Amino acid sequence: MAPIKNGRVLFNEVPSGLPMFHVGYPVPGRTTVYDVSQTIDLDTVPLNGSVLIKVLVVSIDPYLRGRMRAPEVESYSPPFALHQPLHNHGIGVILRTDSSNPAFEPGTHIYGLLDFAEYFIPSIDRLKRFVALKTLLDNPSILPWSAYVGVAGMPGQTAVYGWRAYADPKPNEVVFVTTAGGPVGSMVIQLAKKAGCKVIASAGSDAKVAFAKSVGADVAFNYKEQDTAEVLKREGPVDIYWEHVGGSTFDAFLGNAANHARVIVCGMITAYNDSTGNGVNMKNLISFLSKRIHLHGFLVGEVGAKHPEYVTEFYAEIPKQLASGELKWAEDVSHGLELAGEAILEVQEGRNTAKKVIVIAKE
Amino acid sequence: MAPIKNGRVLFNEVPSGLPMFHVGYPVPGRTTVYDVSQTIDLDTVPLNGSVLIKVLVVSIDPYLRGRMRAPEVESYSPPFALHQPLHNHGIGVILRTDSSNPAFEPGTHIYGLLDFAEYFIPSIDRLKRFVALKTLLDNPSILPWSAYVGVAGMPGQTAVYGWRAYADPKPNEVVFVTTAGGPVGSMVIQLAKKAGCKVIASAGSDAKVAFAKSVGADVAFNYKEQDTAEVLKREGPVDIYWEHVGGSTFDAFLGNAANHARVIVCGMITAYNDSTGNGVNMKNLISFLSKRIHLHGFLVGEVGAKHPEYVTEFYAEIPKQLASGELKWAEDVSHGLELAGEAILEVQEGRNTAKKVIVIAKE
Repeated sequence: MAPIKNGRVLFNEVPSGLPMFHVGYPVPGRTTVYDVSQTIDLDTVPLNGSVLIKVLVVSIDPYLRGRMRAPEVESYSPPFALHQPLHNHGIGVILRTDSSNPAFEPGTHIYGLLDFAEYFIPSIDRLKRFVALKTLLDNPSILPWSAYVGVAGMPGQTAVYGWRAYADPKPNEVVFVTTAGGPVGSMVIQLAKKAGCKVIASAGSDAKVAFAKSVGADVAFNYKEQDTAEVLKREGPVDIYWEHVGGSTFDAFLGNAANHARVIVCGMITAYNDSTGNGVNMKNLISFLSKRIHLHGFLVGEVGAKHPEYVTEFYAEIPKQLASGELKWAEDVSHGLELAGEAILEVQEGRNTAKKVIVIAKE
Repeated sequence: MAPIKNGRVLFNEVPSGLPMFHVGYPVPGRTTVYDVSQTIDLDTVPLNGSVLIKVLVVSIDPYLRGRMRAPEVESYSPPFALHQPLHNHGIGVILRTDSSNPAFEPGTHIYGLLDFAEYFIPSIDRLKRFVALKTLLDNPSILPWSAYVGVAGMPGQTAVYGWRAYADPKPNEVVFVTTAGGPVGSMVIQLAKKAGCKVIASAGSDAKVAFAKSVGADVAFNYKEQDTAEVLKREGPVDIYWEHVGGSTFDAFLGNAANHARVIVCGMITAYNDSTGNGVNMKNLISFLSKRIHLHGFLVGEVGAKHPEYVTEFYAEIPKQLASGELKWAEDVSHGLELAGEAILEVQEGRNTAKKVIVIAKE
């Protein structure tokens, strides 16, 4: 077979605009570029002990912004390398495998850190951490592959592990979930309802608010139209706060926290794109003491590594519950890798309607 | 015996914004007044099932400020009643006991919530929670009574319980202790050194810095003369932060936190007297997520109630270690109840040199 085009999304430039840090929103075509200069011969490209993967789905998550930074800036995830493909959790299918390393049979669907490319050959290190998805489908229900990067993948695990490790819910406690229209938030709503809690949900569009309500939120509001502190004052005080936002939303929670409230810090999107250095004004830090608050920042990978039983139980239970409708979910799909840059910006600006994925190929 | 004077310190007025002077601070003679209008006949005053106590020592703690508020303002401790005596943990000796309720023998030294008065008769409710101190002295070492409201009392318990419940120290971890010259901070320093940690200590006077060093701090500095963030950048990152301060000190920690840092929120003195409502500017809240921080606000009474074994072990071990010199301690004594108002202000302004107590009578 003749070489064919291998479209890829490259990290082209650290988002700029302000002098000091990794500042500003990622601009499609500038921060990232869709590159079609590479060709690949699927039959003959050397595998060097690895496998050839056709990428079907890549996930678009808020945290990707943090990796688009200058390499000297330290953070919790490594920076992307300039002029190299982005990568993130995704689903692919094995096309060929090196005869010296039959890690996966051709035809196997895998979950792992995949390049933003139509085809790619992972490093041996990355290959080792791939998960074969066929075992996850040993139940009669069928989920689309894209679910495995969302509610049945890392974001779903984030919700389940964080809730399980830190929420300590009691019936009738009040839970406040931010970015409630996303895959993490909407899963947290459902976990909280299963625990018998009252759920207050905030999101940034009416569509997301409607979705949050449809999965069980008792109170859901658009934070651009209603004052968060007023809603919490009326519906709270809040026993469990699922933090995705930071800034004034965090402060509104602190001003309306119940005694012994738990804060689960899963994200802080207002901080990702604000490195003006101006900081945020907090009026209610005293609540940490006066309400005896417990706060837990966490990364899903660390909690999963510490509690392997969480991982096993997640894959045993959650996909089945999603497929049966016991757990509800939604996704916001863009078709084609050339839309990745725009999708990344959408997520940073909150314009996506649900969990954002790029479907590159059907099979 | 004829009636004698019974000096008392009354709560006279909620501290308010006095323009240009001590905004929000408790002003001696105005917030509190020393009152000598009451007389008492020690031989004949009716006890109504309770006991007559001669008060020897009362403790002056930062948290007292929080109780000097309007009754409609909610907080974690009840407000003081206007025109009634202040009360706090103290040491007294039983002079008489009601024959119908021989709870304590005359001559017994007790620890409990005592009025700021030379003599007083507790409610039955308060009486029930008194602890007889004679059992605490069943070891050959002798401590002055005043120690039992400081390092051998509530502040010492605060340090020991908070550290035990939340610090999770590992050898060579870096601990940052604020208000390190006080009874809580100086005890935390010693607990951290016993755990093999490196200790950075901050305090607001050179005398307190010297005391923090004398009890084992590896690095001690006067935060009025050195920039906290710079010290932490040089000596950190910080694994365990003992929070007494809030505001820019908290933010300096967040900017220099180690991965998986623990924050133990025991006080937040910058917030107690801030009646401006302006809040504080925080630049480093993202560290809650990026460093996966765990924060715990706590009250000593709640932790002690949840873990009675902490209380038993505290009284079995700590007074002995203090008396033998294995644990070091200091106190700042004012002699006479008429000095209580000034002592309260001293503590709010940080002018005390160590744990502040009022010694009212020797025996």
